[in-house]
Amino acid sequence: MYSDLHMPKGFKCAGIPAGIKSGGVKDMALILSETPASSAGVFTQNQVCAAPVKVCREHLKHGVARAIVMNSGIANACTGSAGMVAARNMAAETAEMIGCAPQEIFVCSTGRIGPQLPLDKIVPGIGTLVDAARGGSVQETAEAMMTTDTRPKVAVAEIQIEGKAVKIVGFAKGAGMIEPNMATMLSFVATDAAVEPPALQAALKKAVDASFNRITIDGDQSTNDTLLALANGAAGIAPLDESSKDWDLFFKALENVCFELAMMIVHDGEGADKFVTVNVAGAQSDEEADLAARAVANSLLNKTAWAGEYPNWGRVMDSIGYSKARVDEALVSIRYDDVQAVAQGMRTEIPQEELIKVVSQTDFAININLNLGEGVATVYTCNCTEEYVRINVE
Amino acid sequence: MYSDLHMPKGFKCAGIPAGIKSGGVKDMALILSETPASSAGVFTQNQVCAAPVKVCREHLKHGVARAIVMNSGIANACTGSAGMVAARNMAAETAEMIGCAPQEIFVCSTGRIGPQLPLDKIVPGIGTLVDAARGGSVQETAEAMMTTDTRPKVAVAEIQIEGKAVKIVGFAKGAGMIEPNMATMLSFVATDAAVEPPALQAALKKAVDASFNRITIDGDQSTNDTLLALANGAAGIAPLDESSKDWDLFFKALENVCFELAMMIVHDGEGADKFVTVNVAGAQSDEEADLAARAVANSLLNKTAWAGEYPNWGRVMDSIGYSKARVDEALVSIRYDDVQAVAQGMRTEIPQEELIKVVSQTDFAININLNLGEGVATVYTCNCTEEYVRINVE
Repeated sequence: MYSDLHMPKGFKCAGIPAGIKSGGVKDMALILSETPASSAGVFTQNQVCAAPVKVCREHLKHGVARAIVMNSGIANACTGSAGMVAARNMAAETAEMIGCAPQEIFVCSTGRIGPQLPLDKIVPGIGTLVDAARGGSVQETAEAMMTTDTRPKVAVAEIQIEGKAVKIVGFAKGAGMIEPNMATMLSFVATDAAVEPPALQAALKKAVDASFNRITIDGDQSTNDTLLALANGAAGIAPLDESSKDWDLFFKALENVCFELAMMIVHDGEGADKFVTVNVAGAQSDEEADLAARAVANSLLNKTAWAGEYPNWGRVMDSIGYSKARVDEALVSIRYDDVQAVAQGMRTEIPQEELIKVVSQTDFAININLNLGEGVATVYTCNCTEEYVRINVE
Repeated sequence: MYSDLHMPKGFKCAGIPAGIKSGGVKDMALILSETPASSAGVFTQNQVCAAPVKVCREHLKHGVARAIVMNSGIANACTGSAGMVAARNMAAETAEMIGCAPQEIFVCSTGRIGPQLPLDKIVPGIGTLVDAARGGSVQETAEAMMTTDTRPKVAVAEIQIEGKAVKIVGFAKGAGMIEPNMATMLSFVATDAAVEPPALQAALKKAVDASFNRITIDGDQSTNDTLLALANGAAGIAPLDESSKDWDLFFKALENVCFELAMMIVHDGEGADKFVTVNVAGAQSDEEADLAARAVANSLLNKTAWAGEYPNWGRVMDSIGYSKARVDEALVSIRYDDVQAVAQGMRTEIPQEELIKVVSQTDFAININLNLGEGVATVYTCNCTEEYVRINVE
């Protein structure tokens, strides 16, 4: 499905089976810049974090990078000093094959917490990846990142700067355990724009706040979340920063790529078959609107009600009531898409069938107005089905 | 099963079908003291709270009470001023039948949020209840409180004070939506001890903190949670307060009744078939231990792992890591019952089968030591099965 896609100039990529997972499934990926690229990264805020996250944080200080190498199947989390050695070896081996400093390599892992990385499979895998990258495909790279994802996730943008084509490509893996702070999420963005590292870091952080940090699946956060961006300047434009006249154009394109990937992740939530947008307006601040929206989006009672196509606005009232947002029950209104279920804290005369029609769609919005102030927020989430439980029971 | 149980002296009770629910199911209950009783109450902290909760808060100021009247089926929540009128009418009608002031009546409702109370069924129901209470049974009273509960919940204690038998009986309904602050939980405690209202209130609050506030099922909190206590002094002892020599004996008995009821609620969590105790020690404070324990107990990924009898300690590490408790990954130990899964933040050599044996039990503990300080906390929870989702989808 992504077979026609070309990477931004000066980038190569590959995805291969290295034998970490059984059954010949692709489980390692590489994104490689032919020249040193500006780098940026955003990581999990979990206090328990995987060895590759620690190594990436160190290497990010170097400012420029050549490649991102990743494996799925094993998370290299809770693996102590042996895990750190393995993550460093993964970087060093890749650096040697490419011919750069180890600090120019980012390493990522996703999968089971606890086991050590099988370096006897990872090291030959790196060799295969570097070879494969010459003719590597976007599709295979995205496939190698998948864990419980049902489909690969790729988003692209192309803009014109100084009369030249500038491309951005983003890869992601998601599925379960996605919350505010990007849990069990890996995403890699590559662009042939030229961007100074501090500007790239600021742009990435801002793009994440408007995309990955607005989605929630089961409220958990993971040990391995990592979003990395590389900008190698191969498009041949002058380096961009916040003062450039084309900055907004570039930033919007980056943000769109992140937003598209985030939406793909929610749409592919474990066992989920409904995409729900929770909009809160009229809170006393944007922060309070966010608290109310997350309380609704994370409530297991709401998520199961949506699975049953049952417009249980009472559970929505309940959730905003126990959120840390200030709420005056008598002022609350709730609309399902455009159908008003609640006015002044009480149900309207709208027939239940009208509401059922809305929640029977695969994609609908719950629009809450607290009527207390100007604060607004939006959170994207999915329903919780018996299938979610089945996947996570296994 | 509770047919042999007698109420404390001077109390009567009844449970009847009043036609609020269909199919002749019991849906109203009454607990009645023959004489004015000291009263105490603890209520939901949800900002969206039901009309009966507001009325109970008002009536609690009166200090003494004669009866608690409740209905299941309809929550009388999000019902505006009409709901307040209905709740007040329910109290006034009961007061008139009994012959006391309306302020001496507590009213409670549980069930669907939104609809108005059907007073045409409630009012005749009150008459039937008052009649039935003469020969009413504990079993029928407990049954009338049930919503998605699979069994009635009653706990009793009997102690000797001044050579006289003092009894405490507690009723509860629970099931889903139970979190820190007693969500969708109703519980009524009656004792023939004599206790001053302020002492009873303090004791009840303290007993709740050690019982109902230590259980969690799905992390949601409800609009209707209410715990009420009545002490009528019919046992013929001198009034108790914190300075009485028998105070500790009384308090412990009250606490035990609350604790037993709380444990019955978790054991009867919607769709749940495992009871899990999460103990956290070695936190920097008791508050932080509590945060870590709740993060583990509320994680949907943990709850589904337990349903699968899968000892996924990695998800436990992940949960404590994103909790607001300070955690140093390299110091954490985790035992399943007595089997050590994690030492110094890494898995031990214990074979997986040993851990599976523990989580295959219907009742086990996860013992976490953060090894950072002296803070301890315990939270009781249950697993999350496909059946939970099925119940809440419907």
